[in-house]
Amino acid sequence: MDPHITGTTRLYGLVGDPLTAAKSPQLLNQLFTEQRVDAVCVPFWVNAANLPAFVSGARAMGNLSGMLVTMPHKQRMLALVDELDPTARQVGALNVIRCEPDGRWIGAIFDGVGCVLGMQWEGNHPANKSVLLVGAGGAGSAIAFAVAAAGASNLTISDVDEARAGGLAASVAAETGCDARSGPPDPQGFEIVINATPLGMKANDAMPVDPERLAHGAIVVDIINAAEPTPLRRAAQARGCRTQDGGPMHRGQAVYALRFLGFDYRPDGRSTPDDGPR
Amino acid sequence: MDPHITGTTRLYGLVGDPLTAAKSPQLLNQLFTEQRVDAVCVPFWVNAANLPAFVSGARAMGNLSGMLVTMPHKQRMLALVDELDPTARQVGALNVIRCEPDGRWIGAIFDGVGCVLGMQWEGNHPANKSVLLVGAGGAGSAIAFAVAAAGASNLTISDVDEARAGGLAASVAAETGCDARSGPPDPQGFEIVINATPLGMKANDAMPVDPERLAHGAIVVDIINAAEPTPLRRAAQARGCRTQDGGPMHRGQAVYALRFLGFDYRPDGRSTPDDGPR
Repeated sequence: MDPHITGTTRLYGLVGDPLTAAKSPQLLNQLFTEQRVDAVCVPFWVNAANLPAFVSGARAMGNLSGMLVTMPHKQRMLALVDELDPTARQVGALNVIRCEPDGRWIGAIFDGVGCVLGMQWEGNHPANKSVLLVGAGGAGSAIAFAVAAAGASNLTISDVDEARAGGLAASVAAETGCDARSGPPDPQGFEIVINATPLGMKANDAMPVDPERLAHGAIVVDIINAAEPTPLRRAAQARGCRTQDGGPMHRGQAVYALRFLGFDYRPDGRSTPDDGPR
Repeated sequence: MDPHITGTTRLYGLVGDPLTAAKSPQLLNQLFTEQRVDAVCVPFWVNAANLPAFVSGARAMGNLSGMLVTMPHKQRMLALVDELDPTARQVGALNVIRCEPDGRWIGAIFDGVGCVLGMQWEGNHPANKSVLLVGAGGAGSAIAFAVAAAGASNLTISDVDEARAGGLAASVAAETGCDARSGPPDPQGFEIVINATPLGMKANDAMPVDPERLAHGAIVVDIINAAEPTPLRRAAQARGCRTQDGGPMHRGQAVYALRFLGFDYRPDGRSTPDDGPR
């Protein structure tokens, strides 16, 4: 059931192109209904060329309280908000904006802390674990900072673009003090292996790591959110490894994003961390 | 129950300031739910100074299909649309915009034909009747053109601004061929008397016409939409006159406005006119 809309209802927007697969309006509207919040989330279908004009218009709406931002606007929107949460600065992208009563827009992205929260829910918290992270793009960058900040004993970052992996590792080490370095995508010896590449989304993709070299008892987190387990997860399970798909990370980032917007969201009644988003 | 909102839901906006008393989101959303239209109407709270910026942004939304326009934007919006329906040109205001797939915005206002439709529903159609219309503002102008076009035998328009009444009467006569003129607010001899002034909204308002001079059997239409009958309606009823409040006009204009947006709206199952809006 969706919120009851009147003239005084506050607006939350989901801005992107396309929005055909979007799920967040349903999530927010269910939350607003359950918590009796006089607000509604609606899609704003805006293409890349129109984004600046759209933002000027959206800033003219006195009842817009926030926005979720999806493809292709996550990077471009950085320059159109007034303030960046540290999460957005680290990742170089945002996916949620809070519109303050004084008119300031603050952008953030919680993929990294959301991934750690999802790992915690699944009993796979990275504290004191050796972690191999494959993929140093947007999602990988966010996860690298968050896994390091969550107390991984060491973090190796691998990417086909070795310079990108090295740069990210250096930033993570400098910012968190974690023992972070770049390296090859060899899972041998790691307690946790995280796939943050798109490999596994398409049928004929190569494996992001060689599952034959997974350590006994390793935990494999594949952030790809598909109906069927990815080939990596299937191979890891066949070796007796515990695995986790992209669902917990997605729900975890939603907890933080909704908290950033002022709402208490507990998917399936799960507890949320006492420590706020960083 | 409100529409179920997904990423592909079309948007209709209500733009105005304030919107605290707005009822149209509820009306449209009930219609969308009943007719299983994948659309939702939400409030856009925009002040006068921000209207041009808002419009530029709203034009950047690929899923905005229409807007309802209320105070204080009904006149100012004329210059911000691409095309005006004849109704909007006659009245010099608009309150509904259709956003065409090719990006054109077309503005219209159906207060006049809506008033006539409401009168028809109540058995008070103005065809072949002598009509006194008091008030030559926005609503009065719309009603004057529509009552004349609906076949009133003659129309007298009265306003505290006599020049405004005279100008409107001349335009109506020229455009419709109706015997229209300006005159004093004396109801004697008229079969239908319409109050299109705000007199009667506040407790100590003067009467728009002297009810003692209402003809026997006259019909009194007061477009003020209040919970309690206005003093004019009470006095007219005490003299045995049939009266009508602003409700039928409001529902009548909604029929036309929703038809203009592509929807078939039949309040309380009433039939709608076979002739489209002019």
